[in-house]
Amino acid sequence: MQYSRLTQRIAGEGAAAWDIHYRALARQAEGDDVIILSVGDPDFATPTPIVDSAVDSLRAGATHYADVQGKARLRELIARRHRQTGGAPDTRADNVAVMAGAQCGLYAVAQCVLDPGDEVIVPEPMYVTYEAALQAAGATLVRVPLRAANDFQPDPAEFAAAVTPRTRALLLNSPHNPTGQVLSRDHWEALAALCREHDLWLLSDEVYAELIHDGEHLSPDSLAGMRERTAIVNSLSKSHAMTGWRLGWVIGPGPLIQHLTHLALCMLYGSPDFIQDAACEALAHPPAALDEMRRTYRTRRDSVLEALADDDTVEALRPAAGMFMMVDIRRTGLSAQTFADRLLDTQGVSVLAGDAFGPSASGFVRLSLTVDADRLREACRRLARCAAKCRTTAEA
Amino acid sequence: MQYSRLTQRIAGEGAAAWDIHYRALARQAEGDDVIILSVGDPDFATPTPIVDSAVDSLRAGATHYADVQGKARLRELIARRHRQTGGAPDTRADNVAVMAGAQCGLYAVAQCVLDPGDEVIVPEPMYVTYEAALQAAGATLVRVPLRAANDFQPDPAEFAAAVTPRTRALLLNSPHNPTGQVLSRDHWEALAALCREHDLWLLSDEVYAELIHDGEHLSPDSLAGMRERTAIVNSLSKSHAMTGWRLGWVIGPGPLIQHLTHLALCMLYGSPDFIQDAACEALAHPPAALDEMRRTYRTRRDSVLEALADDDTVEALRPAAGMFMMVDIRRTGLSAQTFADRLLDTQGVSVLAGDAFGPSASGFVRLSLTVDADRLREACRRLARCAAKCRTTAEA
Repeated sequence: MQYSRLTQRIAGEGAAAWDIHYRALARQAEGDDVIILSVGDPDFATPTPIVDSAVDSLRAGATHYADVQGKARLRELIARRHRQTGGAPDTRADNVAVMAGAQCGLYAVAQCVLDPGDEVIVPEPMYVTYEAALQAAGATLVRVPLRAANDFQPDPAEFAAAVTPRTRALLLNSPHNPTGQVLSRDHWEALAALCREHDLWLLSDEVYAELIHDGEHLSPDSLAGMRERTAIVNSLSKSHAMTGWRLGWVIGPGPLIQHLTHLALCMLYGSPDFIQDAACEALAHPPAALDEMRRTYRTRRDSVLEALADDDTVEALRPAAGMFMMVDIRRTGLSAQTFADRLLDTQGVSVLAGDAFGPSASGFVRLSLTVDADRLREACRRLARCAAKCRTTAEA
Repeated sequence: MQYSRLTQRIAGEGAAAWDIHYRALARQAEGDDVIILSVGDPDFATPTPIVDSAVDSLRAGATHYADVQGKARLRELIARRHRQTGGAPDTRADNVAVMAGAQCGLYAVAQCVLDPGDEVIVPEPMYVTYEAALQAAGATLVRVPLRAANDFQPDPAEFAAAVTPRTRALLLNSPHNPTGQVLSRDHWEALAALCREHDLWLLSDEVYAELIHDGEHLSPDSLAGMRERTAIVNSLSKSHAMTGWRLGWVIGPGPLIQHLTHLALCMLYGSPDFIQDAACEALAHPPAALDEMRRTYRTRRDSVLEALADDDTVEALRPAAGMFMMVDIRRTGLSAQTFADRLLDTQGVSVLAGDAFGPSASGFVRLSLTVDADRLREACRRLARCAAKCRTTAEA
């Protein structure tokens, strides 16, 4: 049978990056002492009051069709939170569409603003599924490097040079996965100016915005002339340890929200009411556990920085935010994938090769801060041991 | 700002059909005695064991990322159920992709098998959101009438005549919304032969398959040479009163399932684990409430048939399945929309005009069997009264 051309555009190699993670899980299941740092799923449970709220809602019979755009109370709470955390001060419930996760939000925005053949400028390294989400709309990704030499911070001049008559949008992600870097106000201003100058959409993925340790979050719709050209995707997945709930949203100008609602009608028919109720609870009464999670990620980050501080072979990049860290393994003389394979095979630690996120991260591996500080220190010892051995072999 | 061309293809008039429903809800909220028969949401609560299962799963911490294709146990249960209810006898878990509802399943299948410009033959009247789901993929709907004179049963010759070199698929829905008719084996055989002859996909929407009163369900993938060209969408929404859970699936050949999984990765990133656990419970231990719901729909149907049996002006079409009924109001001399408006305004009963589902249903209104038999009888008295008055006025 014949399949659509779309099927070729969504079958990227991203999936291959996860092979190492599945190998690690299999070994762990067999009882091996494996430390898994290859996934972005918080090891925390969703805070109890949020779970309780979903249970109460389920028991109360909130199991019928819900408002397709998202229930009004949730959209109001999302708008309020956005106003309070550096977003456009006039954000209202009408500027919000609830989606089945931030990934779903990005997919839907791409469908509504991109035509086949349009170009989207995306800095790389980038989150693995961006490619398929944008290409599903028929768009072409134009990758601009975030250079390791520059601590993976963007060079606005390189973005400007990438603009063509076909460019329709810029996709930014701050705090950034995999590098944990946060865009400065100057960078935002420069990139926003580019969008205004060339009449581009700015798609902003802000799912790590609540996990910042150094610096401050900025939502680009708060900048002059940006509100009508900015689509923000966000969720509770990372901030509230709710990855599996599949609840996210898009914040954008009214016409975009209307188009997204039309799409949600034929694609989703709404998000479960009891999940929306849990999200309302999460936003209306932020649980104390959130601060605790943030502090824990920070402690874990610091424990890795400390454990690798004096290492001769590898170097950890200090992330300003998020739940990931990049470790420079170039002095081992190996490719990141070869190093990651050897680290798992000889030391029982699973990490992802930077290449999975883009060529500019090819000399790095990504660690997830999803085990406790003691285990992270043990993982660092093993990683350093493996790196030293590889380097000795390479130099011999 | 510029939006994609897709936004025009998904902004159909389907939405306008629901205006009357929202008007009815508003009047009910104001305390008016309104009987709402304009929506397809069961009035039953989700059976308690299913809710309990979701609660247990939530409490046990099943709040992390789940398998994107759907968890293996759920896919096995879905495959087993399909084998046991007239589907292809060799259906396995590999033939199943879990999606966020049957609507999402149809959207995803359309994306994976249809290219822009492809034609899909769809009988009308049809479910309102088919249009947007197919057009989102850039496909063109070719409507073939189901004629009232023929009790809304298809004429395979008319389908054959609609095939062009651009035809890529046939979309069928049995039991059928809005008419409640069930395709006979002869009809299935004739339409399947057409698909084989012209190398077409057969998309089969079977969400009412468990609510059959007269006749038997047949899944077309059980017919010779059809398994590799059939995609079935189904869910627990109607059979288990789980509309708001947004849990459905696609059953199809392996390559289709692989493509759907790629799409689910960039569009959904999986369905909530605790919802999948509840679905497992629903399928592993079908609650007694299911039979009770089926019997109740049947009793309600019969009460409407009885209440309108001797009416001179309107005539109810006997549905073989489902939770809807069509009532012929042509003798009132009014359009269905005008009649529906008058019925709500003067008698406080909300129904949908058949036109919303396609021109062949333009002389009918659709009633939902979502209130109890007493209220349905009262609704029928009001409907008959309104129809008689309209007819008298028209003939005067």
